[in-house]
Amino acid sequence: MVIGILGGGQLARMLALAGYPLGLRFIVLDPSPDCCSSDVAEHLCGEYDDIVLLEQLAQYADIITYEFENIPTVAVEYLQQNNAIVFPPLNALAIAQDRLNEKTMFNDLGIKTAPFAAVDNLEQLRQAMATVGWPAVLKTRTQGYDGKGQAILRTPNDLADGWESIGRVPAIVEGFVKFDREISVIAARAKSGQTACYPVAENTHKDGILRLSIAQTDDPIQALAERYITQLLNKLNYVGVLALELFQQGDELLVNECAPRVHNSGHWTSDGADVSQFENHLRAILDLPLGSTDIKNHAAMVNILGKYPNIRAVLENKDAHLHLYDKEERAGRKIGHINICSKHRDDFHETIRKVQTLTNS
Amino acid sequence: MVIGILGGGQLARMLALAGYPLGLRFIVLDPSPDCCSSDVAEHLCGEYDDIVLLEQLAQYADIITYEFENIPTVAVEYLQQNNAIVFPPLNALAIAQDRLNEKTMFNDLGIKTAPFAAVDNLEQLRQAMATVGWPAVLKTRTQGYDGKGQAILRTPNDLADGWESIGRVPAIVEGFVKFDREISVIAARAKSGQTACYPVAENTHKDGILRLSIAQTDDPIQALAERYITQLLNKLNYVGVLALELFQQGDELLVNECAPRVHNSGHWTSDGADVSQFENHLRAILDLPLGSTDIKNHAAMVNILGKYPNIRAVLENKDAHLHLYDKEERAGRKIGHINICSKHRDDFHETIRKVQTLTNS
Repeated sequence: MVIGILGGGQLARMLALAGYPLGLRFIVLDPSPDCCSSDVAEHLCGEYDDIVLLEQLAQYADIITYEFENIPTVAVEYLQQNNAIVFPPLNALAIAQDRLNEKTMFNDLGIKTAPFAAVDNLEQLRQAMATVGWPAVLKTRTQGYDGKGQAILRTPNDLADGWESIGRVPAIVEGFVKFDREISVIAARAKSGQTACYPVAENTHKDGILRLSIAQTDDPIQALAERYITQLLNKLNYVGVLALELFQQGDELLVNECAPRVHNSGHWTSDGADVSQFENHLRAILDLPLGSTDIKNHAAMVNILGKYPNIRAVLENKDAHLHLYDKEERAGRKIGHINICSKHRDDFHETIRKVQTLTNS
Repeated sequence: MVIGILGGGQLARMLALAGYPLGLRFIVLDPSPDCCSSDVAEHLCGEYDDIVLLEQLAQYADIITYEFENIPTVAVEYLQQNNAIVFPPLNALAIAQDRLNEKTMFNDLGIKTAPFAAVDNLEQLRQAMATVGWPAVLKTRTQGYDGKGQAILRTPNDLADGWESIGRVPAIVEGFVKFDREISVIAARAKSGQTACYPVAENTHKDGILRLSIAQTDDPIQALAERYITQLLNKLNYVGVLALELFQQGDELLVNECAPRVHNSGHWTSDGADVSQFENHLRAILDLPLGSTDIKNHAAMVNILGKYPNIRAVLENKDAHLHLYDKEERAGRKIGHINICSKHRDDFHETIRKVQTLTNS
């Protein structure tokens, strides 16, 4: 069985590494000649809308999936016209690509969000501020990740510059929400309709980029997060792993966005859960029984950004597990992560601190 | 960093899968065009003593290791002449290739074995039987694995046929030992001299092939097994993972043989130990700090021989983890294994039984 993946970055790499033990083979389509999956998968090098390559992918792969949500939907449509099976489904990809449609869907399902409004020009932006309140964040409707394509609006003086900075494209403006913490929840839904949800993770971002995720055991908010993501999975007739980023305010959750793929805040599952998000994504799209999402003990993940840490110093920590992506160093680039899994709470927090120091995160 | 591996079977495949997260790349040398590592490593296809390929391997790889002990020592010598770094060291490989030298070394170290004698002809075999006693097993000094190259001698009438059946080559004859159980112990030694030992596994063989390994927690024999393997590691100035197969008689251990490589009876470590034997072998040869060998809860492994089980039925068992080698079915061939990891003892033994039924083992 051959799995095709649109995108050959670290998520595709980790999907492949998790999938070989299931007897699978992998082929990725990625424009970068040295994409970090090329050592663990066949690599079709070219653009995502290259019709010749898409036809090759449809021919070689039994099932096709994707590792990020910014691939053109026309690529998936073309694959389906060529009788390829693609999961997660196209509607989920389309929804995730447009912040306005995404948030509208959340609200339609009774899932709360920050106040938001559609913005197509500077005048609309001015008017919308009355609804969403100051400060606010202006985001392009499509594209953008890790804080790109966003502008923060603190005073009316920021409006024109903000509108320029995002490129004067269709956008939404969202009111800032005061929150107690940022969390994410990740769940899988198999073709059979079976669902399995991981424990929520508490996330710390810096400059819009995830630095630290700590999986939460017996968290009182788990039930609500699980209800929200299960609603979404079923509404979208979803197949695969879905991630949901949320803000917690007291006992309430506001959804920020969803990602129709395995997610950075779920990387701890490779060492800290019975079955990883990567294996469960593959089981879901293959319609195999989903694996246990139970946490083993205490689990967290620290991202490695820009520069490699001293590997020897990292591995001297008994509870640290290294995951490098074989990427070249570049400021702000995600080039690896370190999972921390501990039996005891004290060791756990001490190792997190040590690893954060080693990775400057 | 590129790791070269002599041999491209399932052990090389699992070394590679464990090594990518450490940022490593892999190249294997294997005579089989469809060896099961070829999807996860560069593959030099040819014989182990092919000088051109060995030169290529020495050129591409920063460190070279091997996945089985029957590679010609001349290949390792040639690599070393070409300035390649090869671990485990040549002396360990040479010792493991000759049952007579191996057992003599064990005895020299004060490590007990079954009674044995060297046999170079039929007359010597007749004489040796007086020392080792009936019944006995005749084994070629070199080559042979999974029960191949062996003949069981129950009566004097078996001597001539036995001698013929092993091909009239230099051999040893060993007295049968009555044992309570078969166990194995696996340990790693880094270039720095640091050692780390896994919990012993209790092993069940059928027709000379391993079927089931159950990792033992708090086993009273652990200390002795650990003393023996640590003596060997230090004696050989060993670097890498070493496996030792033993028979237990009451409080005593008789060593059967050692394998200078990762070992089938240690496959449970991929899901059941903090750090797997595969990762620790790589850490050892890279002179990185060795990872924790602690067992997580209860862990066992069931081999898949000859025929694939119903994958769906296997994965319906919450505690079962599948490891397929992407090999074609063939009677008696090791084509995969299933690790069983459980929090509770009752679930554990029930899952082992279910998985044994599904795999006919």
